[in-house]
Amino acid sequence: MDTEIKSIEQIHELINKEIESLPFSGYPSNLYDPIAYMMHQNGKRLRPALALIACNMFGGDLKKILRPAIGIEIFHNFTLVHDDIMDQSPIRRNHETVYRKWGTNVAILVGDTMFALAYEFLIQTDEGFLGEILRLFNKTAIQVCEGQQLDIEFENRTDVSIDEYIEMIREKTAVLLGTSLMTGAIVARTPKQQAEQLYQMGIKMGLAFQLMDDILDCYAQQDKFGKSIGNDIMTNKRTYLFLQAYQKANPSQRIELDECFGNNTMPADEKISRVKHIYDDLKVGDDGYALADGYFSDALRLLDELPVEDNRKIGLKTLIERLAVRQV
Amino acid sequence: MDTEIKSIEQIHELINKEIESLPFSGYPSNLYDPIAYMMHQNGKRLRPALALIACNMFGGDLKKILRPAIGIEIFHNFTLVHDDIMDQSPIRRNHETVYRKWGTNVAILVGDTMFALAYEFLIQTDEGFLGEILRLFNKTAIQVCEGQQLDIEFENRTDVSIDEYIEMIREKTAVLLGTSLMTGAIVARTPKQQAEQLYQMGIKMGLAFQLMDDILDCYAQQDKFGKSIGNDIMTNKRTYLFLQAYQKANPSQRIELDECFGNNTMPADEKISRVKHIYDDLKVGDDGYALADGYFSDALRLLDELPVEDNRKIGLKTLIERLAVRQV
Repeated sequence: MDTEIKSIEQIHELINKEIESLPFSGYPSNLYDPIAYMMHQNGKRLRPALALIACNMFGGDLKKILRPAIGIEIFHNFTLVHDDIMDQSPIRRNHETVYRKWGTNVAILVGDTMFALAYEFLIQTDEGFLGEILRLFNKTAIQVCEGQQLDIEFENRTDVSIDEYIEMIREKTAVLLGTSLMTGAIVARTPKQQAEQLYQMGIKMGLAFQLMDDILDCYAQQDKFGKSIGNDIMTNKRTYLFLQAYQKANPSQRIELDECFGNNTMPADEKISRVKHIYDDLKVGDDGYALADGYFSDALRLLDELPVEDNRKIGLKTLIERLAVRQV
Repeated sequence: MDTEIKSIEQIHELINKEIESLPFSGYPSNLYDPIAYMMHQNGKRLRPALALIACNMFGGDLKKILRPAIGIEIFHNFTLVHDDIMDQSPIRRNHETVYRKWGTNVAILVGDTMFALAYEFLIQTDEGFLGEILRLFNKTAIQVCEGQQLDIEFENRTDVSIDEYIEMIREKTAVLLGTSLMTGAIVARTPKQQAEQLYQMGIKMGLAFQLMDDILDCYAQQDKFGKSIGNDIMTNKRTYLFLQAYQKANPSQRIELDECFGNNTMPADEKISRVKHIYDDLKVGDDGYALADGYFSDALRLLDELPVEDNRKIGLKTLIERLAVRQV
C-alpha cells in the first residue's frame, strides 16, 4: 500500500521511473522502436500525473493506479502518432514525428499497437475496478476520435462557431483529462458524486489547457514548445484564435483571413506572418488567455468544494496553477 | 439463459440479427457512416460465429457471448479498414474500401473509433469474465498488429522463408480465430485445458483459412471473392504461392519472378498474368491447398479429442468442413 501524501515532484518521479523501466521492445523492431521513441521522449506526462494525484488525494493505493495511468499515457501518445499523420505535423517534442521518420504505414500500425498496449496496461489493477474503468475509458476513447474528426472537418468549414470549437476541444482533449482524474478516483474507491465532480474539474482544466495549446502553437518559442510554430495556421485549423479574430475582424481583415485560410499554396512564412499580424492587431491572444483563466478558475473552485482535507489538495492545486502559467 | 444446441444457421441468424439491429450511427456522421458501411456489409462474420459456436458447444449462455463476439467482429473490421490503407486495396466485399471512398485521414480515424467500439462491446458480459477475456484479447490485438507489420516488411525482403510466412499469418490471422473460440469457451466457464485446446484448433483453422485466402486472391472469381484479384501480386506480397514458386522455380522462372516482384511500374495485367503463369506451371496452388488441408485435418483432430458430446461438436465440425471447400 502506498497512500501517504505525495508532492507533484514525487508523483512525477514515480511515473518517470516506471516508464523508463519499460523497454517497449519487441519483434518486429520496426513496430516497437517507434513506440519506445515516443514513450521515452520528455513529454509532460500530464495525464498519468492527474490519475496518480487524484488517487493520492482520496487516499487510494498508488500501486493500483500506476499501470492504468501509464495505459492512459500510452493511449494519449497513440493519438499523437495518428494525429501527426492527419495534420502532417513534422515536429513534436523537438523530434521528427513518427510518420515522418518511419512512414505513414508504420505510423498507422504503431498507433494501433499502442492502442492495444494501452488497454494491456489499463487492466493491470484489481479486477473489481475493471468494469468501471473500462466503461469510462472506452467512451472517452470514442469521444477523442470524434473530437479529432471534428477538428479535421472544421478545416474545410467557414462557419464554425466558438461554441462548436469548445465542444470539439472538450472531446479532443478535455475528456481524457477528466477521465485520468476519475480513473484515479475509481481506484481510490471515491464516492461516485465526488469522482464525477473531479471529472468535471478535468473538463475545465482540459478546455483551458487546449486553449493555451492553441495560443502557444502561434506564440511560443519553437525550441521550448517542441512543435513547429504556426502549424495550426498552416493547416487551416479553426482554433479559438482564428474564430475570435474572424468575429472581431473588420471587412478588410476578414477578406485577408479568408484569403489566407483558403490558400494551401501560399508560402508558410507569408501565411503565418499575415495571419499572426491580424491576431496581434485584434489581441485575440489576450482573449484566449482570459477565457483559459476562467476555466482554470472554475477548476480551482470545483477543487475547493471537494470534501477532502486541504493538505491532500495541494498537489492538484499546484498542478493547475503551473498549467495556468505554462510557456511550453 | 440460452444454452440449447444451435445449428450454424441459427448461430449466424443470431449474429446477423444483432448486427443489423445496431445503427452504428453518431455525430460526426462522417465518422459513423463508414462504420455502418463496413459493419452492415455482407461479411462472413466468421469470428463471432466461432465465439458463439464455442460457447454453445460447452453449454454456455449465448446471451453472454453475443456482445463480446460482435466486439471481435468490429475489431476485425477495424483491421480491414487500416490494412486497406496500407495495402492500397481498392475493393473489399465488392464495395469500394473506406479509404478510397472517404480518404485516408477519415479511414485512420474510423479504424481507431472501431477499435474503441470493439472494446465497448467486448466488455458487455459478466464482470467476472472481464480480466480473462481482456488479457487474451489485448495480447491478440498486439499480435495482429505485429503480423500486419511483418506482412508489410516482407514485401521488401527477398529472403522470406515459408516458416516465417507461416509465423506471420499465425499472428495476422490465426490468433484472432483462436481468440474467438477461446472467448466463447471462457464465457462458458470451460476448463482451462480445453479452452486452450480450442485456441490451438483456432490457430490451425486460421492458418488454413489464410492460406486459402492467399490462393483465392490469385484464383477466385472477383465478383464472388469481393476483392480485386491479383492484389497480392500487385503489392509484392510474399504469400505462400510466391514463396513456394520461388523455391520450385528453375533459374529462368526465378529471374522472371524477381523481375515482376521488383517492379512497381509494370502494368497490373502484365504483372499478374506473368506471375500467375509461373504459379500455374509450378502447380503451387495445389501445394497450398494440400498444406491448408493438413491444417484443417489437424483442427478436426483437435476437435475430435475434446471431451464433449458428439452432437455438441456438429456446428464447429460443419463450419470447418465448409471453410475447407470455400470458393470465396
